[in-house]
This record gives sequence, C-alpha cells and structure tokens, in this order.
Amino acid sequence: MNAYEIISRKRDGQSLSIEEIKFFIDGYTNGKIPDYQMSALLMAIYFQDMDFKETHNLTKIMLNSGEVVDLSDIPGIKVDKHSTGGVGDKISLILAPIVAAAGVPVPMISGRGLGHTGGTLDKLESIPGFNVNLSLSEYRKIIGEIDVCLIGQTKEIAPADKKIYALRDVTATIQSIPLITASIMSKKLAEGIDALVLDIKVGKGAFMKTEENAIALARNLVTVGEMFNKPTIGLLTNMNTPLGKAIGNWLEVNESIDCLMNKGPADLMEITHALAGVMIMLGGKASSIEEGLSLSRKMIGSGKAFEKFLEIVNKQGGDVKVIEKPDKYKKAKNIIPVLAEKKGYIVDYDALEFGMTSVSLGAGRLKADDPVDFQAGIILHKQINHPVDKGEVIAELHTNLDSNHQDYATRISKACSISSEPISHQPMIFKKISNDGIEPWK
Amino acid sequence: MNAYEIISRKRDGQSLSIEEIKFFIDGYTNGKIPDYQMSALLMAIYFQDMDFKETHNLTKIMLNSGEVVDLSDIPGIKVDKHSTGGVGDKISLILAPIVAAAGVPVPMISGRGLGHTGGTLDKLESIPGFNVNLSLSEYRKIIGEIDVCLIGQTKEIAPADKKIYALRDVTATIQSIPLITASIMSKKLAEGIDALVLDIKVGKGAFMKTEENAIALARNLVTVGEMFNKPTIGLLTNMNTPLGKAIGNWLEVNESIDCLMNKGPADLMEITHALAGVMIMLGGKASSIEEGLSLSRKMIGSGKAFEKFLEIVNKQGGDVKVIEKPDKYKKAKNIIPVLAEKKGYIVDYDALEFGMTSVSLGAGRLKADDPVDFQAGIILHKQINHPVDKGEVIAELHTNLDSNHQDYATRISKACSISSEPISHQPMIFKKISNDGIEPWK
Repeated sequence: MNAYEIISRKRDGQSLSIEEIKFFIDGYTNGKIPDYQMSALLMAIYFQDMDFKETHNLTKIMLNSGEVVDLSDIPGIKVDKHSTGGVGDKISLILAPIVAAAGVPVPMISGRGLGHTGGTLDKLESIPGFNVNLSLSEYRKIIGEIDVCLIGQTKEIAPADKKIYALRDVTATIQSIPLITASIMSKKLAEGIDALVLDIKVGKGAFMKTEENAIALARNLVTVGEMFNKPTIGLLTNMNTPLGKAIGNWLEVNESIDCLMNKGPADLMEITHALAGVMIMLGGKASSIEEGLSLSRKMIGSGKAFEKFLEIVNKQGGDVKVIEKPDKYKKAKNIIPVLAEKKGYIVDYDALEFGMTSVSLGAGRLKADDPVDFQAGIILHKQINHPVDKGEVIAELHTNLDSNHQDYATRISKACSISSEPISHQPMIFKKISNDGIEPWK
Repeated sequence: MNAYEIISRKRDGQSLSIEEIKFFIDGYTNGKIPDYQMSALLMAIYFQDMDFKETHNLTKIMLNSGEVVDLSDIPGIKVDKHSTGGVGDKISLILAPIVAAAGVPVPMISGRGLGHTGGTLDKLESIPGFNVNLSLSEYRKIIGEIDVCLIGQTKEIAPADKKIYALRDVTATIQSIPLITASIMSKKLAEGIDALVLDIKVGKGAFMKTEENAIALARNLVTVGEMFNKPTIGLLTNMNTPLGKAIGNWLEVNESIDCLMNKGPADLMEITHALAGVMIMLGGKASSIEEGLSLSRKMIGSGKAFEKFLEIVNKQGGDVKVIEKPDKYKKAKNIIPVLAEKKGYIVDYDALEFGMTSVSLGAGRLKADDPVDFQAGIILHKQINHPVDKGEVIAELHTNLDSNHQDYATRISKACSISSEPISHQPMIFKKISNDGIEPWK
C-alpha cells in the first residue's frame, strides 16, 4: 500500500478500503504523506466521489485522529445542531438556550466566520468577556452544570480535519460532498453528542445553491450520522435572503436578545423553532416534532430561554449587564443609510451580496487570520414584501472604516430588488431529510 | 488572477487563457506557487482535459521556461524522432545514424529508462566512454560537424517540464494527453528541430494500451507540432511484444550493431525504416516516404549508417573498438535459459512482463535514481511464429544478481504463449497520423 496507488485507485473511480483511507489520512496528519499527494487525492475525490461506506470510514478516521469527548456520565440525550452557514444566521445563539431550557443538554462546538458567512464564535466574542476558548474539561463541567456550553474547536478535536480543511481551502476542493460530510461529522461526533440536527441552507447565500445539491449533502450527512448510530435529521432551509434583520457580530447578538425576549422576526423564529422542535424530540423531551415545536415556543414565551442565555453568558465569563441593556453597547463610528431607489415592495435581498458587503464593512474575514470588527454590519429596516417609498431608508450600514461609504451603500442598494407588486410567500423550510427519506415540511 | 481561481476554473471544465497558464507555470517553476496547488491543477486537467489551444499554450510556456537551441546556422532541415517508449526499443540507435547518413541533421535529446521501458541514454552509456552529458554548445558543434548528436536533457532545457514531470510522477497524473503532449513537445521543440516524427507505441508493452488512446495522443502531438509550424508526423506502431531479440542496455546496443550491419530482425527493421523514411522525406532528401524508405535501406546496405554510428561513438568519447568487436564485451555473471514448456509455435511474448522482468534482472529502474546494470537483460532465441520443441531454449536471462534465478525464468516462461498453430501475421505499423488526418500504413 502506498500513497501513489491510493491516488490512482480513486482517480480511476474505485472505492477505497478503510485500510487505504487510514493509511492516507494518518500518514498526512503525521506528516509522512506530503501536501501535494493529499491535494491530488482530494481533487480525485472531488471528481470521483465516495460512496456512503467510504465517507463513513473517512469520517471515522478523521474523528479518531483526535479526542472524542465522553459525556455519558451527564444525564440526558445530548443533541447539537450544525448549520452549513448563511448570512445573518444567528440561530445557534437562540436555539441552544431554548433547547437547554427544555431540558435537553446541548454540547456545541462552533466555528468562526469565513467568506460571506458569519460564525457563532465571533458573535459570542462580541459580548465583552465571553470566553469560547475553554478546555474540553471545562466544557464538560459547564454542560454538567447548565446543560449547555458554546466553545470553539480545540486542538484535540479532529486534527486531521483541521489540516485537510486548510489544504482544501487553497486547492479548490471544498465543494465535495463526501469531504464536506466527513469534515462536519468528524467534528460534531467528537463533541460527545447522541443525536444531531442539521440546518442545510439552500439558495443564493448558501454554499449549496440548488435544492438538488443541498439534498445530496443532507442525505450524506444523515446516512453517515445513522451509520454511527447517532439519530440525525436535516432540515433544508431558505438562504436566498439574509435571516432576520441584522448581519454582523454584535448586531446579531442584539437581535438574538430580541428573539429570546419574544420580539424576533418571523422568518428567523420559524427556522429556529423548527430546529428546536426536532432537537427536543430527539432529546426525548417531546414525543413528536410538533410537541417539540410547542415546547420551544413556551421556552421563549415564558422567558426561560432568555434566562438560560444569561446563565451561559455568566458561566462563560461574559458581561451579563451588556445582555440586559444591549442599547448601551458602543455603536460603530459611521452609520450609513441605504435609500430606496423607487417606490414599491421589497421583493429580494441578495444574501450573498449582503454577506460580502458586510465583510467589506469589517464584520467578517476573507482569510482565516483576518481580524473582525464586532460593531460592523448591516441592519435591515424593511423585510421582504414590505412597501417602501422612494428615498425611504431600507437598511443602514455600520462601519468603523472611514472611506468608500457611498460604494458600500450602492452595492447594497443594487442587492435590493423593489417591484410594483409583492411576491408570493416564500417558505423558510423546504424539506425534512431523515432515515425515513425526504419529506415536505408542513 | 490567482492560483486558486485558476484551479477552480479548470476544475469546472473551463478553458484557461495563455495568461492564466503562464501565471501558473511560471509561478510554479520559480517557487511562488506551491506543489500542492500544482498537483490539484494537474489532477483537474487529468479529469477536464485541455483543448488544442490550451495545450499549445502550455507547451509554449513550458518550452520558454528554458533555453531553445537555435540551429539555424547549420544547413539542412533538422528532424528528430520521439518514441512514447517500449520494450526492446533501440530504434534511436539505428535510426539516428541512418537519417544523418542520408544527409538530414538529427539533433536528438533523449531520456533514461523508467519502469518497464528502457531509455536511449542508458543504452548509449553502456558503451565505455560514451558521454551523453554534453553542454548545449558542444551539442551544437557536433551536429555541425557530423549532422547528429545524442545527448540527455540539460538543465537549461524546459526546466518547467522537469519540475512538473517529477510531481506528476508521484501524484498519479502522468496519464493525461495534454500533459504528455506538452511535456514531449516542450523538450523536442527546445532541441532546435524543424520537423518531428513520432513513434506512438500501442499495445500491452506501451503506455497507451488501446489504439483509441494512442490515436488521441498522436493527434494532439501532431496538432501542437503543426501549431508551432513544425511539420509533425506520427506512426502508430505495435508494442504488444518486445521489439527485436534483445532487451537490456548493452544487449540492445549489440543488436543495434547487427541491425546497422544489415543483420537485424524484420520487426525492428520494418519500424526503423518506416520512421527513417518519414524523417528523410521531412528533411527534404526524398520527395516521398517511399523514396525515403528506399534511401534508408540503402544507408544500411551500403554500410554508411554503420560508419555514421562509429563517427557518433568516436565524437562523443565512446570506445569504437567495442563497437567493432562487440563479442569482447564482458557478459553478465549468470545466463539463465528459459525452456519451452511444450511443443508448438510461439504466438505471444507479453512485452510488459518482459520489460518488468528485465528491470528485476538489473537492466532498468523503478525510481529515477536507481542504478542500472548495463550487462543485464533478456535475449530471445525465438521470434513470434517460430516452432519450438518441449525443453528447447526460448530465451536467456542475463543478470549479475545471484538469487531468484528460477523465479525470473518462471516469470518469463509464463509471459511466453505457445500454441499448436501459428497466428496470423501481426502488422508492425498500424496508422500514419499527420495534418492530412489518419491513414492506414501500407
């Protein structure tokens, strides 16, 4: 067995055995197989795909390249959510407290923003003092105490994935369903979960632009999850327009606080409650998704989810007073209005363009080591199908940068479509993908 | 323009512009683009191919990465031959003196053996004193004096190809027609040629196993050659069985001497004269291939080709006495007979297995820096369709290795097929591929 033969076999469309996958992944992780052979294999996988068995084995090898957290001594069925990433996607910040408040432990290891999508860790760090860099033992301890903890990937978690992901990122091999699946699942399974919910975004602001591709990814993730005996359910959700009204780190935390106080926008809350309903059901605290949904709404209505959020912030060193009085948070130096170019109805916001402009304003990063500005971002004043007059403020841009303000406003103005007629209602959740197959979401 | 975008564009099946190809190849050659991005691009090219224009541009950039020899002050149309490599392929050693004796200058830069195929340089070096490592100025000088010189690739010739080839060799991206084309043509065009003949081997002992693939490669090579305004003609030749009777470095030189003395085996001489006929025609010393063929036979019959070979050996420092009395060359320590397992007719020798066994006997190399044993190899005592009795000697194995003799004999015995009936005549030359299209060889 050698690296060359394994590359050739995959190049020729053959299935790799678990021994071959282990030889290659372990060899690469410990430096015996060079980058250039791994990138050739990654590109061969991009073209020749991997079957479920190979993807399962790849996930297993990547998972076992590092530590797998054992949370079995903490009572309850541990459930987490993974999102494939979107614009304005602050769902984790609302979802985790809801589900934990409902009595289901949520061990959550999140990522940072990259490209047009934001990341939960950057958002949490916009809360003064909030520490996402906890050790795995502190993480276990906090979950035991308050049923939830939100941290970043530690170096012990799936080091093979870390090294391979960095290489995929510079060799145009990110967009491969088996590679995406193994990357996501190896990290999630290392968290110590018993079950998993997936938010598979589809649309202009998502990595998967078409429903076909999103379903293919969801089926892969669900199948691999079930192969590890972890019940896994995916929801296909709408990412054509930004979620909610806020894009940018602190701006999204602020909106999450509104949501937890039962003042959240409908689109965002619909997806949040759906995911929470599935998690509560999987966590055994409801006998159906419907019952889970209803419990999720109760956690918001009763204020219990908000209380849980305050507990999290407090436990992880964040300044609770900032959460209680978010209006006191310092705003960006410049707030630039974006005005409607004509009278009509807002019929589209291009999520990708909003995401990229938000990065330009300082809220995100194009390279993994770029700094982010917590105050920067975009606030939408109008939602889809709202009427606007010519010159009315549609959105405001928040930035600490001192130039190019008009360029940013023009970009966002162009990314807003105004029509004389409203559009028909767009569903926020398209499909449910589980072991039972693909079903419509009702 | 950046490496990532260029990889993505090729991955998605788009044609690369000359600027993109130049950016990538120059960047890789000068170390600004890392191996892992080049190997991802190579694998993407393997899957998505390149059109003629891209292949032409790739060849041009690789050619211009180094020195292009200018032989314009030497009179005559300079013509070389390239072979895609086979087993027992000593044609260059016979062909170059024939064509030069006919008055056509032959500037020939050759390679070393790798895997199951031998290399002209190793064969030449089996002649005591023969120096293939001449500088480009010595090479020019000798061509001016005797119309022919046989050397190895210098570091000034197509350095981009050298670096890329080494990477392809370890990333399973050798077998890509545009990459093979650019590699061959960038080196050949750098020699200072005006026209080129290609010996495209097809069959069990060739890199191209099927006529379809061999034709695709030949068409690519011919098209790119013509795009450089260098008349290029390819012959598709039979590489199912070893060429001639000898495999191994000195053993093949010895057989070449026989050929030059008009005692060569028919299969080998048929292909040699065909290639020589085309070269003499392209070199303007015959008005048709037929006339070239006839002139080629005259060069052998008259002894002029043999005289030219002695001139070459003498000019390049080789011991002419060894060529004049080849029987005095020291033989390998062990000569192992391979016996016929039954009575019948020899109907097949598996060229690949003969090539690989010859490597095992010491005659070739699996890695570029393995040493080779000039004395080792295989001599066939019987040719295709010769009758044999049970126990009669079919072949002898020459080796300086002291063990596993019976294993080698068994391998070769298994690679010989004996049948009760002879097989129908197998053509040695299948097709001619030129700017005029694909024609049968008559």
